[in-house]
Amino acid sequence: MNRRVTLAARPEGEPRESDFSLDEAPVPEPGAGEVLVRSHYVSVDPYQRGRMSEARSYAAPLQLGDVVTAQAVGEVVESRDGRFSPGDVVVGQLGWQEYAVARGGTLRPFTGTPITTALHLLGTTGLTAYFGLFDVGCPKPGETVVVSGAAGAVGSIVGQLARIAGCRTVGIAGGPQKVADLLDVYGYDAAIDYRSQDVAAELKAAAPDGVDVYFDNVGGPVTLAVLRRLAVGARIAVCGQISQYNDTEPTPTIPGLGFLIVYRARVEGFLVTDYAHRFPEAERRLARWLADGELTYREHIVEGIEHAPAAFMGLFRGENRGKALVKLV
Amino acid sequence: MNRRVTLAARPEGEPRESDFSLDEAPVPEPGAGEVLVRSHYVSVDPYQRGRMSEARSYAAPLQLGDVVTAQAVGEVVESRDGRFSPGDVVVGQLGWQEYAVARGGTLRPFTGTPITTALHLLGTTGLTAYFGLFDVGCPKPGETVVVSGAAGAVGSIVGQLARIAGCRTVGIAGGPQKVADLLDVYGYDAAIDYRSQDVAAELKAAAPDGVDVYFDNVGGPVTLAVLRRLAVGARIAVCGQISQYNDTEPTPTIPGLGFLIVYRARVEGFLVTDYAHRFPEAERRLARWLADGELTYREHIVEGIEHAPAAFMGLFRGENRGKALVKLV
Repeated sequence: MNRRVTLAARPEGEPRESDFSLDEAPVPEPGAGEVLVRSHYVSVDPYQRGRMSEARSYAAPLQLGDVVTAQAVGEVVESRDGRFSPGDVVVGQLGWQEYAVARGGTLRPFTGTPITTALHLLGTTGLTAYFGLFDVGCPKPGETVVVSGAAGAVGSIVGQLARIAGCRTVGIAGGPQKVADLLDVYGYDAAIDYRSQDVAAELKAAAPDGVDVYFDNVGGPVTLAVLRRLAVGARIAVCGQISQYNDTEPTPTIPGLGFLIVYRARVEGFLVTDYAHRFPEAERRLARWLADGELTYREHIVEGIEHAPAAFMGLFRGENRGKALVKLV
Repeated sequence: MNRRVTLAARPEGEPRESDFSLDEAPVPEPGAGEVLVRSHYVSVDPYQRGRMSEARSYAAPLQLGDVVTAQAVGEVVESRDGRFSPGDVVVGQLGWQEYAVARGGTLRPFTGTPITTALHLLGTTGLTAYFGLFDVGCPKPGETVVVSGAAGAVGSIVGQLARIAGCRTVGIAGGPQKVADLLDVYGYDAAIDYRSQDVAAELKAAAPDGVDVYFDNVGGPVTLAVLRRLAVGARIAVCGQISQYNDTEPTPTIPGLGFLIVYRARVEGFLVTDYAHRFPEAERRLARWLADGELTYREHIVEGIEHAPAAFMGLFRGENRGKALVKLV
């Protein structure tokens, strides 16, 4: 049997266990051109919150009863696509379930190791950090790069990439453990705990010449504090706004736009999928930096598909320390 | 004697007559390297509000008692700079006064006609429209360009430049006279009266495929309505935020930043002075388009330096119909 987590109700505000349903269905059979995959790890990411809502977004919403959208990495069990054979490791949008059938064309073979890196450094998370920082943020050596959600899946990679690019890096995260990780694991030059510290005051010390690049994963008051410390010509890459995803009305994050004139600053949102034609370039570089020890990571792993909703809800409370994953096999 | 308007008090909220003082001083004498200019027209512009405030900005604030900063065009009366002779027409930051002494290096000779164009189409106003639209907005033929403050000094030029660039243009302004000007004088394809119409609903009809470029002069609720109708990949050039300049606390103009991700949109502030190295390129083109009848303008002229404050205060009530100028000679 195939255990699956489906959307039982659209969350209002913060998601709850009752918004999800665990069910069992027969393991599906692949049709012509399809592949049956047994997932080893499924991913837990803030963007999934958007799929659970009916609000207009860049992708269609889930319908009630649908298996929750998620990336997964697993092993081919049965293939009716000539490009795949049983035992191949593949990545795809397989959802929060133990087995999935997918068209071969939607799957990506994965040869990296460990296989969990397919869901972070060597997957969409790493690509998001790469294109958001380099193509939207455009950092130059010697500049100061500030990252919110800096100990999270994307943020922890952004900080390391900015260091590789020769920048001074300042990470903002919540709680002493994450702040320790910023300095000791991810190599940020400075770290700020937004829960216990005054972000604006700390930034003044950590970025005395102002913020050249801000990579924003959170929005809200943290972002407001950073925007008050911009350098002239600053670039703000808007990757996520996790502090707002459960809001029923968005909390204003920035006041009037006049500060953008004062600082000749740019605020730009991006989606990693728009860079698909350049994924090979980024994948090669990320893999080399990982192999060379220039990039590292932490994983926050829970076991059993039934715990995916709790891991997901934990993202909004900042409970994960590293990339949130659910181990199935 | 030289009649001058000085800053008597820093305005709190909307500027009042009592924030300004009219005085008389002897006509100044030029020292070595200096030029005495008799101004024929002085300019009245929203950015002057920023100079009257102590809030951090891109230029130092006026001090109480200072002549109010303003551009002017006039005639050289006496020159101790070999590059200028009496009778030459020059433009410079000469302030709200009838005569001014300036270093020769800060003055620009002007040969266009009529000389008032030095303060709008062929001056900083035109350059602001040119670089803000083309370099920040990056319009492509066939795209939809929306302009707020569309009948104002900068906005009226932006709409015409966007039409020259092959775009569909939608102007937003306040009141039936300005809306008539948008269509009949400046050649916008569509016009919206934010005072009497529902901007969001009108935009849906005027920009059915969404807004590709938004040139913002006003901020506030008008901008909020436009940001809800963006096309994917939209660029927002933030030139001014006149609706906020008298606010003691800025009114939030945009909600959370998440919409920037949905639309992969960019919001960027700019200052025309950052493009100084390219002024000659823009000046040549603007002059040619004006000569060819591709660009036109309206002027809102009051006479006598003592009326500069009233003209300035009128900007915030939208009273000017065309570029606000004070005629002195």
